[in-house]
Amino acid sequence: MRRATGATLGDDRDPVAVEEPLEIRVAFEGLDGPAESLVVTMRTPGHDAELARGFLFTEGLIGSAADILDLVTAPPDAGGENVVEVRVRADLQERFRHLRRDFFTNSSCGICGKASLEALRARASYAVQGEKLQVAPSVLFGLPAALLARQPAFAATGGLHAAALFRSDGEILDVREDVGRHNALDKLIGAALAAGRLPLWNTAVLVSGRASFEIIEKARMAGCPMVVAVGAPSSLAIEAAWESDITLVGFLRGERFNIYSVPARIGAPDAG
Amino acid sequence: MRRATGATLGDDRDPVAVEEPLEIRVAFEGLDGPAESLVVTMRTPGHDAELARGFLFTEGLIGSAADILDLVTAPPDAGGENVVEVRVRADLQERFRHLRRDFFTNSSCGICGKASLEALRARASYAVQGEKLQVAPSVLFGLPAALLARQPAFAATGGLHAAALFRSDGEILDVREDVGRHNALDKLIGAALAAGRLPLWNTAVLVSGRASFEIIEKARMAGCPMVVAVGAPSSLAIEAAWESDITLVGFLRGERFNIYSVPARIGAPDAG
Repeated sequence: MRRATGATLGDDRDPVAVEEPLEIRVAFEGLDGPAESLVVTMRTPGHDAELARGFLFTEGLIGSAADILDLVTAPPDAGGENVVEVRVRADLQERFRHLRRDFFTNSSCGICGKASLEALRARASYAVQGEKLQVAPSVLFGLPAALLARQPAFAATGGLHAAALFRSDGEILDVREDVGRHNALDKLIGAALAAGRLPLWNTAVLVSGRASFEIIEKARMAGCPMVVAVGAPSSLAIEAAWESDITLVGFLRGERFNIYSVPARIGAPDAG
Repeated sequence: MRRATGATLGDDRDPVAVEEPLEIRVAFEGLDGPAESLVVTMRTPGHDAELARGFLFTEGLIGSAADILDLVTAPPDAGGENVVEVRVRADLQERFRHLRRDFFTNSSCGICGKASLEALRARASYAVQGEKLQVAPSVLFGLPAALLARQPAFAATGGLHAAALFRSDGEILDVREDVGRHNALDKLIGAALAAGRLPLWNTAVLVSGRASFEIIEKARMAGCPMVVAVGAPSSLAIEAAWESDITLVGFLRGERFNIYSVPARIGAPDAG
């Protein structure tokens, strides 16, 4: 790498965000033959098992941790680190067939066509519930700094998205980083699934970037009633958040933020 | 929307970045029956025809503007604004069949598995050529401000990516904005394709965010020898840029930037 600074140009070496493909292969219980390729996603290596679990769960392909009978990262005969093989229950074949059909009309990230969206939502394991979740503005103000302190790879490379799980008192329970914003959230939800922490009824999700439709839908699949974004929300993210009873906060910077949906879960500001 | 600023919370209304699904449907010349759904991508409405053209081109499904015989946005019987129907030459069916097979193993954005990557590259219409492209550091320093001045929707919403085409003298030839970074670039390349401006041998691409592998691959399909990113590059973007003889610049901020590949096309800094 060459670094230009004003009128000087020198050789230098900065760590960069690692991006590599991960192939998720699926086999069904009791069926012979090799696992079939389900999907390839561009991700930052690490927490691959969680990414696979989270992806399968937020896409509605599995409904619980018990649906996965076996999961092997970097299986010996796959010739590399970039493969995860998952064995799932035989009766899930119908869900995967649906994905095969729907996926093709779902280019970039997640589900969008109305029909497939309804099908996905019908398969959700949890409804969103947030009766007990109340977050004070002062707690929100403190989150970006707390997140940054837990993002070692971003600090080094400036090139990673982060997703975090936090409680109403502001404690950050878990953080995942990835070059793909949806992957960071899938890793986070996959970890919660494996730890038996779903549904996320009493916790909120914090994302380092923008809030797209897909981010809201993934939170929804986990039952999570609040998504807080450091960046901007999209129009469809706001619509989906209202529809799903999710509180959506955006542009969380310094002592400022905007509430785009279901504002009742954000407390009144401290009079100081 | 409610806006919290320190200890005050008020109602307010900001414009937000619009995100809606766009379905691209394809029919083949001489075949009866309705156009079939190819892909749904989440995009910001506007320049939909260019997005469809650019997507088909950068995914290697069409090889030239002449491969598209007809393109209709919001066809009357589609029931909405979010559909583009494209009629293409009959002999392209084989390429589309490949996509059908490959796409399923290509979740989020673009092509990644080695086999499908090689297949895509083999279908590229243009080789990258940049013998004549030389960009001075002082030109790069001026680009972020010039781009921002041409991003009205970002300025209003803070929620859009931009991709721009610029010449070695710093003149910005064209800009497109979108909630999806890959869509902004597809719109830009689709516009260049329709205007007969491909290959992009003497121009460079500027992106407002990070440079992922996919961004490099799309530039490559258009023959473009230089990608300049305001944000960070990924490891795979750097690798792909070297492989494709593309100059990759990242972290362009103030009077600083880093050159990650093929530095010969960036001139020596002005001694002032």
